[in-house]
Amino acid sequence: MSGTAKKLSIICFSGDFDKLVSALTLATGSAALGYEVNIFFTFWGLNVIKRKAGRTFPGKGFFARMFGFLSGGRNNVPLSRLNFMGTGPRLMTFLMRKRNVATLNDLLDAAKALKINLYACEMSMIILGMDLKDFIPEVREVLGVAKFLELSEGGDRLFI
Amino acid sequence: MSGTAKKLSIICFSGDFDKLVSALTLATGSAALGYEVNIFFTFWGLNVIKRKAGRTFPGKGFFARMFGFLSGGRNNVPLSRLNFMGTGPRLMTFLMRKRNVATLNDLLDAAKALKINLYACEMSMIILGMDLKDFIPEVREVLGVAKFLELSEGGDRLFI
Amino acid sequence: MSGTAKKLSIICFSGDFDKLVSALTLATGSAALGYEVNIFFTFWGLNVIKRKAGRTFPGKGFFARMFGFLSGGRNNVPLSRLNFMGTGPRLMTFLMRKRNVATLNDLLDAAKALKINLYACEMSMIILGMDLKDFIPEVREVLGVAKFLELSEGGDRLFI
Repeated sequence: MSGTAKKLSIICFSGDFDKLVSALTLATGSAALGYEVNIFFTFWGLNVIKRKAGRTFPGKGFFARMFGFLSGGRNNVPLSRLNFMGTGPRLMTFLMRKRNVATLNDLLDAAKALKINLYACEMSMIILGMDLKDFIPEVREVLGVAKFLELSEGGDRLFI
Repeated sequence: MSGTAKKLSIICFSGDFDKLVSALTLATGSAALGYEVNIFFTFWGLNVIKRKAGRTFPGKGFFARMFGFLSGGRNNVPLSRLNFMGTGPRLMTFLMRKRNVATLNDLLDAAKALKINLYACEMSMIILGMDLKDFIPEVREVLGVAKFLELSEGGDRLFI
Repeated sequence: MSGTAKKLSIICFSGDFDKLVSALTLATGSAALGYEVNIFFTFWGLNVIKRKAGRTFPGKGFFARMFGFLSGGRNNVPLSRLNFMGTGPRLMTFLMRKRNVATLNDLLDAAKALKINLYACEMSMIILGMDLKDFIPEVREVLGVAKFLELSEGGDRLFI
């Protein structure tokens, strides 16, 4: 947290629509202000960076497919509360559109444009049988804890 | 994190009773020890600072009312787990009273007394159609990411 | 965050299997790299450090037992999503075994071996009527906010 290089690193664990909106709003806002921003997607958060959002799941094996089928892509992430059988996120997206606030897809586009560093968690990928080509091309690296610590050193870290 | 001015800034996203107790316990404890404490309420966390706790909701529009009706005020926030149809938070409040631990309302009163800075998130307010007069008077400012980053700079940040 | 002594302090609030795996993976990874690591278990997180994992609960009083019965020990913690009536965590443990990734018990053993400092939150213990002898012997101290702040000062803090 020295005055010179401001850095924010987010461990994006959640797959909830509302938390992801918060995480990406904070990330893009920080990047727009000149922060170096790293997002490290792990577990449910990996949904955000799937190459093909939606029902198909790239992982291998029965169990990975089972998790994948149920977790969907970034267009299927539920609200953390009041999901209303899937209408909750659509409702909130509708409200966001109506009020001219960026939606999840807009926020991800902004993150790419702002050159936010997007990383995928090695361990969750191993558990779920995914690999790098399952993600959008902006995700260039798969990291473990050691590399994440190194990259985020000297800045602030948030677990969302 | 320089030795001189200790600062803690909490992004209070959650509307769960137990997480809010944690957030406010940490905030008030830090303030009592001389930390500058900022709490930035966003999404479900906005329930804590509603002017009139309870079932009425100040937002405008059908959808905002729908979210508001279901989310209630700070006397209606659920536990993150084991909600037992609403008895969970009451049970925990009962346990807290019995053991002389501060309840959610006590903690909010302490936060005010300790001059903790309470802020509301601009974006969630836009989405939900709320404005500043919907909140308790101690919330004096509505912030976006830029202002939050500026205020929290040089201290620690937590997402709860 | 001075260059010399790297420190990471985790407030482990969650009792969800997947979040606990994340928290302990980050903690053990950091400790292995020479970080001083503190984990402060609070509320549902206390499940991880219970002396006897499983259905029995050491707290006193009807309500504490009620919470305890339902929350189980570290072998009974649910997934944050897709719990499938309890098969979710077992499924993920199976996947982790199959891929040679450390499970929750392995991670806790690693945390002990790496001399990670394990602390229990005073307030949650008071609410739930637990005391120090209810926890594994590696938990040597019960802390309030003041002591936690002191111990974690100068490093990074995460709320999980």
